[in-house]
Amino acid sequence: MNLILLFPDDFIAESRVQLTGRRLTHVKSVHRAKVGDTLTVGVAGGKTGRGLVTCLDDALELDVMLDVDPPPPLPLTLVLALPRPKVLNRVIAGVTSLGVKRIFLINAWRVEKSYWKSPRTRDDNLLAQRLLGLEQARDTVLPTIETRRFFRTFVEDELPAIAAGTLSLVAHPAAPMQAPRAVTQPVTLVIGPEGGFIEQELVSLTAIGFTPVAIGPRILRTETAVAAVIGRLF
Amino acid sequence: MNLILLFPDDFIAESRVQLTGRRLTHVKSVHRAKVGDTLTVGVAGGKTGRGLVTCLDDALELDVMLDVDPPPPLPLTLVLALPRPKVLNRVIAGVTSLGVKRIFLINAWRVEKSYWKSPRTRDDNLLAQRLLGLEQARDTVLPTIETRRFFRTFVEDELPAIAAGTLSLVAHPAAPMQAPRAVTQPVTLVIGPEGGFIEQELVSLTAIGFTPVAIGPRILRTETAVAAVIGRLF
Repeated sequence: MNLILLFPDDFIAESRVQLTGRRLTHVKSVHRAKVGDTLTVGVAGGKTGRGLVTCLDDALELDVMLDVDPPPPLPLTLVLALPRPKVLNRVIAGVTSLGVKRIFLINAWRVEKSYWKSPRTRDDNLLAQRLLGLEQARDTVLPTIETRRFFRTFVEDELPAIAAGTLSLVAHPAAPMQAPRAVTQPVTLVIGPEGGFIEQELVSLTAIGFTPVAIGPRILRTETAVAAVIGRLF
Repeated sequence: MNLILLFPDDFIAESRVQLTGRRLTHVKSVHRAKVGDTLTVGVAGGKTGRGLVTCLDDALELDVMLDVDPPPPLPLTLVLALPRPKVLNRVIAGVTSLGVKRIFLINAWRVEKSYWKSPRTRDDNLLAQRLLGLEQARDTVLPTIETRRFFRTFVEDELPAIAAGTLSLVAHPAAPMQAPRAVTQPVTLVIGPEGGFIEQELVSLTAIGFTPVAIGPRILRTETAVAAVIGRLF
């Protein structure tokens, strides 16, 4: 937790917050803070700054000064075939820490149906992972996550408008073209499931203007691939 | 497991292997293979190819054909301040999957002493994580991992020779220079602990020719940072 994220309900005065629960526990046990210490804070959706610890017992009280903009967002819309539950949390926290602000989790032929029933796909878990990502990167702006259970409906009816005006890429290990570098325009990036998209799915994506691109011959886990592609693109 | 890694002891004839244990279980429960199926295999340190399942009960027997080179290695030596145990496994498996072949795990001021006592730093665990990384990326060439408990001795006595003739970089979020892109020469990359190197450590590194470079204003987890930097560099 490199930043303590604050919400409207935390404020007990204009520049004073009172925290309990997970954030209190973390500040006590990991930061091992004491009265008089200063911690990095940020208000959800707003500025970041510093919080002076004025009280730390059953609750944590901070006098906060919020005057620094959060880091700039990545101009990237990420469309991810739902990863298996074991990696979903890391992927969501990871891409949030990298500054992605719009995420679609979609179905694909090689996404196992059982993945959609995992408790990790529930809103409360997806929110928790995004908060971890923001706290990691000292960001305050929560990415949106939308889920789409029908690949074809999503790709044909929604994705053209989502990707309009952006560089539209689909990561595909076998693609003859390597992913571009240091792009300056917004990007819509589609990442397939483990095992990749099937041919018909690739055809659907290329039909609406997506270009298959590779990042080398290696098969990477989703969380590794996404970070490597983002490092390359931006 | 996108590739089943084979070792000399697995061979019961020139092109036939017999496997038990983890690999057998994985092929049965995840691949759900049956006799007559073909699986991707590779011999440790050597070529990759295909294995035809000829028997699958208490043991898995494969007739193998090994005729494909593994993916090329990354020309990168990675020097990592020992990450906390919770992330160590993912970092090692992740950088192995990305093709790193030489890894040093070193001490630094902000590496907590307790990290070195974690069972995850034991050779057997570090080997297991590297094997997972190779299996993920269909690679066969095991990276070396060396540990160094004394930062200064390592940096002053060993690192100059390790980094000789390479582009020598230390990742540092506050550096004024951004990490280079698409480099064509070998790189030695030093990555600090959570919380970063202390000033004196940075001075030691710059004194032997390392250049501090940033990859944006965000504080990233080690596994995310390493993948993003590698995606950018290569």
